[in-house]
Amino acid sequence: MYPEAFPASKQYQPLNESIVDQIRQAVGEDALISDPERMQPFGQDASELSAAPELVVEVTEAAQIQALLRLANQHHFPVTPRGLGTGLAGGAVPVYGGVVLSLARMNRILKVDERNFLALVEPGVITLDLQRAALEKGLFYPPDPASLDTCSIGGNAATNAGGPSCVKYGSTRDYVLGLEAVLPNGALIRAGVLTRKGVVGYDLAHLLVGSEGTLAVITKLFLKLIPRPPAVTTLVAMFVDLVAAMRAVRAILLGGHVPCALEFLDCHCLRLVGDLLPFAGAREAGAFLLLEVDGAADVIQRQVEAVGAICLENEAVEVLLAPDAEKRARMWQVRKQVSLRIEEQAVIYIPEDVVLPLALIADFVDKLADLEQRYQMTIYAFGHAGDGNIHLNIVSTNLEDRQRVEEGIEEILGLVLRMGGTISGEHGIGIAKKRFLPLELSEESIQLQRAIKRVFDPNYILNPGKVFHSLEGMDRCCPV
Amino acid sequence: MYPEAFPASKQYQPLNESIVDQIRQAVGEDALISDPERMQPFGQDASELSAAPELVVEVTEAAQIQALLRLANQHHFPVTPRGLGTGLAGGAVPVYGGVVLSLARMNRILKVDERNFLALVEPGVITLDLQRAALEKGLFYPPDPASLDTCSIGGNAATNAGGPSCVKYGSTRDYVLGLEAVLPNGALIRAGVLTRKGVVGYDLAHLLVGSEGTLAVITKLFLKLIPRPPAVTTLVAMFVDLVAAMRAVRAILLGGHVPCALEFLDCHCLRLVGDLLPFAGAREAGAFLLLEVDGAADVIQRQVEAVGAICLENEAVEVLLAPDAEKRARMWQVRKQVSLRIEEQAVIYIPEDVVLPLALIADFVDKLADLEQRYQMTIYAFGHAGDGNIHLNIVSTNLEDRQRVEEGIEEILGLVLRMGGTISGEHGIGIAKKRFLPLELSEESIQLQRAIKRVFDPNYILNPGKVFHSLEGMDRCCPV
Repeated sequence: MYPEAFPASKQYQPLNESIVDQIRQAVGEDALISDPERMQPFGQDASELSAAPELVVEVTEAAQIQALLRLANQHHFPVTPRGLGTGLAGGAVPVYGGVVLSLARMNRILKVDERNFLALVEPGVITLDLQRAALEKGLFYPPDPASLDTCSIGGNAATNAGGPSCVKYGSTRDYVLGLEAVLPNGALIRAGVLTRKGVVGYDLAHLLVGSEGTLAVITKLFLKLIPRPPAVTTLVAMFVDLVAAMRAVRAILLGGHVPCALEFLDCHCLRLVGDLLPFAGAREAGAFLLLEVDGAADVIQRQVEAVGAICLENEAVEVLLAPDAEKRARMWQVRKQVSLRIEEQAVIYIPEDVVLPLALIADFVDKLADLEQRYQMTIYAFGHAGDGNIHLNIVSTNLEDRQRVEEGIEEILGLVLRMGGTISGEHGIGIAKKRFLPLELSEESIQLQRAIKRVFDPNYILNPGKVFHSLEGMDRCCPV
Repeated sequence: MYPEAFPASKQYQPLNESIVDQIRQAVGEDALISDPERMQPFGQDASELSAAPELVVEVTEAAQIQALLRLANQHHFPVTPRGLGTGLAGGAVPVYGGVVLSLARMNRILKVDERNFLALVEPGVITLDLQRAALEKGLFYPPDPASLDTCSIGGNAATNAGGPSCVKYGSTRDYVLGLEAVLPNGALIRAGVLTRKGVVGYDLAHLLVGSEGTLAVITKLFLKLIPRPPAVTTLVAMFVDLVAAMRAVRAILLGGHVPCALEFLDCHCLRLVGDLLPFAGAREAGAFLLLEVDGAADVIQRQVEAVGAICLENEAVEVLLAPDAEKRARMWQVRKQVSLRIEEQAVIYIPEDVVLPLALIADFVDKLADLEQRYQMTIYAFGHAGDGNIHLNIVSTNLEDRQRVEEGIEEILGLVLRMGGTISGEHGIGIAKKRFLPLELSEESIQLQRAIKRVFDPNYILNPGKVFHSLEGMDRCCPV
């Protein structure tokens, strides 16, 4: 019913000398990186996927992007926009070659406006740098992906990144009031607003958020800031099993407590990092919760006590408060060590990012044991218990298991969907998960989305091959 | 650059007997309303706009909508979806005649799931009914448009409705996790998720929210619920002028307090309803703030005291607490009386709904006096001080002033935009404001949005004539 998104007959133009010359004239010599060795890092992200760009263009202003995209339409070469390369789904990998458009140097914080609770930033700003700039003015930018100190706001917007604070504060989309973006045809548009609300026309700003750089290149973001919470405190609790831990999580939320982090580790993770925890027998425990509350100091003190009591009522084996900053940092360190230690001991390492309805998390994790056995893989489950977002780290120590592991993952994702979940909570689809897209979305929905893509990008020059399954035989991407 | 959204040559087909017969067969006799007198209320909303439908179809299930829209494409007649008709921008007015599709009887609350903090509802559910059903299970659905007790969730979603609680809790879009909708081609799709997070594909669910029924007909909503706040308390404060009141608002927010309502009345409103307020000299005061905080009882007690102190530091003339439910209700009554009393004394009554950056509200309202004089109209300003959303009620007692008042409004909206604001915060564009759309959005943005409309609705059968300016001479709508 909808027109074909990308004609199979069209092949991209390799970047010959004349095209490179035109790009150079349009964006300036300083913006070009063409040395293969220097280009190499621009061909990969934090997934295991990579592909070689033919040219890297590192811009400092929107006009360069406009000029580049006009040339891309004229000569039909692909342009893959890229923040700081911390994505986990291959969204910034130039699968068809062409130009990688790096936004890393568009990294100015243009304004932190404490009178209007607003920040204006360029897309290459590191998320933590914005958080710090906001804190200095008594304000707070909550989204906190795990790569906070190395990822870019633009990349966060492209994937609608979240993090532990999501359970209280929401994800990146909730903080994007408006934006400026260059459309694939080279036009610069503004979408959304500078104010706290706005309902004028279709919500293009929030459509661009989460579109993984396939619809436009974001060049400026108008972000909502909130008042800085005066204090924060942490609690950790050990449970015999995940069923009890998740019962505690629901009781905490239903009790009207809204923690700003509510993370869990399953028993597999505890075996790996239990030695870092201040509990005797942590390596043998069934589940671990890390919980933070923020707000006025005396309020959160009482709140964390109430939350601790709820944990004990729900069969927590032990509850500890980590009131000082050092102990807090140590607890987060444990949470972060999990991924590192998993990666260390794995040959195949596939990070999944599913979301389940809260009430079904324990049940779901329970079902993983059988799958581990059947597909001979190990599944580490941890993540954001408060919003049901589970990071499944699926590993195997044998490279030859790949095919079987992939089949296991497909079965896991099917299970997630049957239980009312979704296959990605915050990483996005990129290339890594696009073959699974039809498991979750109907053909009608996918065709509609491809038709929207075509409205924005009729020549399919912007980040092609992402999110939607590409046409047979065009995919040049391969694992590192 | 984009294809024409709606071919000027195409005229809609009047509903002849044969088409009506086919509709009857498709949706059932019981769903039809064809008596002109009974149809009349379906031709208007809460704005001053109306138009006569040729037929009303009142459905109880999605399959009827699918069948109706397929016929609409086949015979090319327009279909205007309608919730409960409380919109203020004419979004549900059938400007080209055709069928009004009433969702009023699709009003079942299918599930309030306290284990997953989720509600599943049909679009015709009255917002207050959902709020009550949630409260019964210890949960809370925050969005609270002024028409809470008469408006529908589906209409709220269509316009992304907000209300006083928006300052703390956000608007309808923030609570829509996912939805089911019938596309103009008759296909039923699911968009979004049932979980707290999800980033799979483009965010169609949130694109449909706020699209004013022009892209699809929402048939089911998956809504996020949050824990019910245990207590709420109210504070009211009088100020010499709005500058002082808005300074207090910013100090409150910057102090880390997040009220769940932060409403203001300007001096014009106070002249109208000052007699209802428990302050001596309220009619002559410069500004009034109504503020609510919710949370644990003892916490909000201290918070409201802190907020009262901030008001006094910022030159509040008087501050009163309204701790009991009766006094609270009376305060809200005053806020609601404003619109009624304004309407009573006006012949021309135009509700505008602008949003300004917080720091500029007082400055903006200050500039209105000059405009009132120049255009001989009265402007009542009140609304949501905490998020900058000001309801301007522009009135005149003389019907002949219409042309001049319209010119005045255009000047006001221009001023709003120059100050970094937006022309609608929660009412939407509908018909009432579509001529102003090009003031805020660039031609490129409008053309892009029309192209998206065309992807969804190539024959332009769904709610035509809304949001975007229609083609010359096709608009059959007129003021009541």
